[in-house]
Amino acid sequence: MEHQTTYNQIAGQKSNRIEALSDGVFSIAMTLLVLDLKVPVNALIHSEGDLWRALSGLGPSFLAYGLGFMTLGIFWMGQTTQFTFIERSNRGFLWLHVFFLMIISLLPFSTAFLSAHITYKTAIGVYWLTIFLAGFALYACFAYAVRHNLTSLNPTDEHIRKAIFGRITAAQGLYAFGALLCFINPYLSIGFILVVQLNYALGLTGNR
Amino acid sequence: MEHQTTYNQIAGQKSNRIEALSDGVFSIAMTLLVLDLKVPVNALIHSEGDLWRALSGLGPSFLAYGLGFMTLGIFWMGQTTQFTFIERSNRGFLWLHVFFLMIISLLPFSTAFLSAHITYKTAIGVYWLTIFLAGFALYACFAYAVRHNLTSLNPTDEHIRKAIFGRITAAQGLYAFGALLCFINPYLSIGFILVVQLNYALGLTGNR
Amino acid sequence: MEHQTTYNQIAGQKSNRIEALSDGVFSIAMTLLVLDLKVPVNALIHSEGDLWRALSGLGPSFLAYGLGFMTLGIFWMGQTTQFTFIERSNRGFLWLHVFFLMIISLLPFSTAFLSAHITYKTAIGVYWLTIFLAGFALYACFAYAVRHNLTSLNPTDEHIRKAIFGRITAAQGLYAFGALLCFINPYLSIGFILVVQLNYALGLTGNR
Amino acid sequence: MEHQTTYNQIAGQKSNRIEALSDGVFSIAMTLLVLDLKVPVNALIHSEGDLWRALSGLGPSFLAYGLGFMTLGIFWMGQTTQFTFIERSNRGFLWLHVFFLMIISLLPFSTAFLSAHITYKTAIGVYWLTIFLAGFALYACFAYAVRHNLTSLNPTDEHIRKAIFGRITAAQGLYAFGALLCFINPYLSIGFILVVQLNYALGLTGNR
Repeated sequence: MEHQTTYNQIAGQKSNRIEALSDGVFSIAMTLLVLDLKVPVNALIHSEGDLWRALSGLGPSFLAYGLGFMTLGIFWMGQTTQFTFIERSNRGFLWLHVFFLMIISLLPFSTAFLSAHITYKTAIGVYWLTIFLAGFALYACFAYAVRHNLTSLNPTDEHIRKAIFGRITAAQGLYAFGALLCFINPYLSIGFILVVQLNYALGLTGNR
Repeated sequence: MEHQTTYNQIAGQKSNRIEALSDGVFSIAMTLLVLDLKVPVNALIHSEGDLWRALSGLGPSFLAYGLGFMTLGIFWMGQTTQFTFIERSNRGFLWLHVFFLMIISLLPFSTAFLSAHITYKTAIGVYWLTIFLAGFALYACFAYAVRHNLTSLNPTDEHIRKAIFGRITAAQGLYAFGALLCFINPYLSIGFILVVQLNYALGLTGNR
Repeated sequence: MEHQTTYNQIAGQKSNRIEALSDGVFSIAMTLLVLDLKVPVNALIHSEGDLWRALSGLGPSFLAYGLGFMTLGIFWMGQTTQFTFIERSNRGFLWLHVFFLMIISLLPFSTAFLSAHITYKTAIGVYWLTIFLAGFALYACFAYAVRHNLTSLNPTDEHIRKAIFGRITAAQGLYAFGALLCFINPYLSIGFILVVQLNYALGLTGNR
Repeated sequence: MEHQTTYNQIAGQKSNRIEALSDGVFSIAMTLLVLDLKVPVNALIHSEGDLWRALSGLGPSFLAYGLGFMTLGIFWMGQTTQFTFIERSNRGFLWLHVFFLMIISLLPFSTAFLSAHITYKTAIGVYWLTIFLAGFALYACFAYAVRHNLTSLNPTDEHIRKAIFGRITAAQGLYAFGALLCFINPYLSIGFILVVQLNYALGLTGNR
């Protein structure tokens, strides 16, 4: 199949489209989370106190919203940082990013699943698996880019490569440790993962 | 953690992606508002008059749609204006904008919440809080950009910095005053806030 | 309010963001239409014939989907054509486009409203009003751009200005005529509007 | 209608907007698929085992999600590859792409329809028809671009043109063969189509 060989060679040479597609998927995944915040039904509210209680009842949903937004922000930042150093593109590279986006747009589901069943190991496992796969895909994307010479990095930029890979490995190690804590206590597990995420979001460690 | 230091230094150097992400979040938040406009069910409509009454019943939802769209337009305009003067970017700057977007995509919820419970102080409080946090985040974004020298402004452009900060402070002062009016009357409160927003949307004051 | 004057002067100088916001709103409005295509529930389907009948029952929804997509395509094309000739931007220009987008994202509602109540003059009136307002806003955008010298057109390009304004006026005249036909027969009215839209989408008249 | 002729000549000269619109439609269509993954309701879950069974029950929905994402990825890649070679644009070209997008945003519906009624020939037929129309529209877009001289390809690039057309023809031939297999067995039919799609997504055949 002569034409097929050629097709795979010519496909995927522009990387600006995958960035636009990613920003679309991220922005929708972020915004979908707000659909879980249901406005209390009018008929059930008869006083200022009723409305306040209904709003307080949305507390866990607000937490899930904040958590989901932060998680998406972390991965968006990670992908954006990688693209600072991407100069070329090919078909395999784009497909890896499509796979990455497939995981990313699962995050609203995993987050809602976790917030609805937070006391169950299964829910923590699903949430962790999604984060793990997203991190794995992001790692694979950059490893592929380095191996196929798609980056603008030259041999003296080894520290940048190490920083990007090291950040993913370190974060994933902490997430996995946090997930395992669910065998002791589910709240400890989620609390630990949250602290790790907050650390990366706020940039608490390292001088930045 | 040597690699982390480096990672935080290299992350977030491109600002075009945050603009694309923002346009995505704003456009979805704007469009989500239309989902609250429910088409009247076929079975309940038996005459031209029935349909007209059903449509009139959607009046408050249309008002909420218009209000929400205008509010999102005001903040979109504010962010767009700031980016006219942004030349560089870093990790902290991008995270502040992600926080800004987290508030922005709450606006469809706050608007629907207000329109469903407009006579309650709690609803006005939630709506005002969302607007306040959005303004606060926008202020913080530009303050950060100025402090970390990410703008294209030079020392002689002090009047531009003052204009951007001054607009947010003035608007937020008026919104806060409007919100406090709910202790007198909820409609007076919402009416005042609406007039302030219309003023900024239509550019009624100041020669522009 | 010295700062306000300045703020309104510096706001809205970049037009690329309004194009990105528009593409976001258009793509969501287009895709929202598919949410009205409900997959038939499993429990009600017992044979190939049942599924086929359920699918046929979706016929009007498919028509509404096609109609809505085409209408959005027509206005997207109109806006895109205008932006070919836009070189500068200001605050008022961006606000006019935000108003245009507010109408555009009402189109999925108007289309669903029409398809659910196609025999009623009220439904035809709502659909026509949305199309009229969208055309009116688009006309206002370009008129504003011409008056405030935001286009790349010079005095010898009068025929381009005339072509853009003339297209909107001609189309809106035909739409208004079609809407008035509902006083004779609703299907005649919708049929006429559809033919006019198809003509513009397929480019049947004029050599192009 | 002198102005109309001119209008159709000046419309659609920029192709960057159709790329942005496409990325929007693709990202929303991809993300909409996740809405079919419903979080199990709290009241029905009383043990780790209950939650695990509820999650397993989502298996077919996860498969449909993966299938839909991959299908959208294949067509997104195909369109992106074509645009690598597009230099100019006109009105007819943009309208063909709007028609392509109209089919693309039907894919979440077709995929959900297939996953709900996988044992019926009608469901396989609907799924195949959507894929066929998308491929047909994509073919028509490039054929139009070649015929109207909108590409950057010169006469010596005949192998690129052949590769792009040949890929679509070969893939559609295999999809059509797979769809016909439903007259033997629906699972065989879907399995065959899935293998063909996986082959294109993973790039298994041809050296690339």
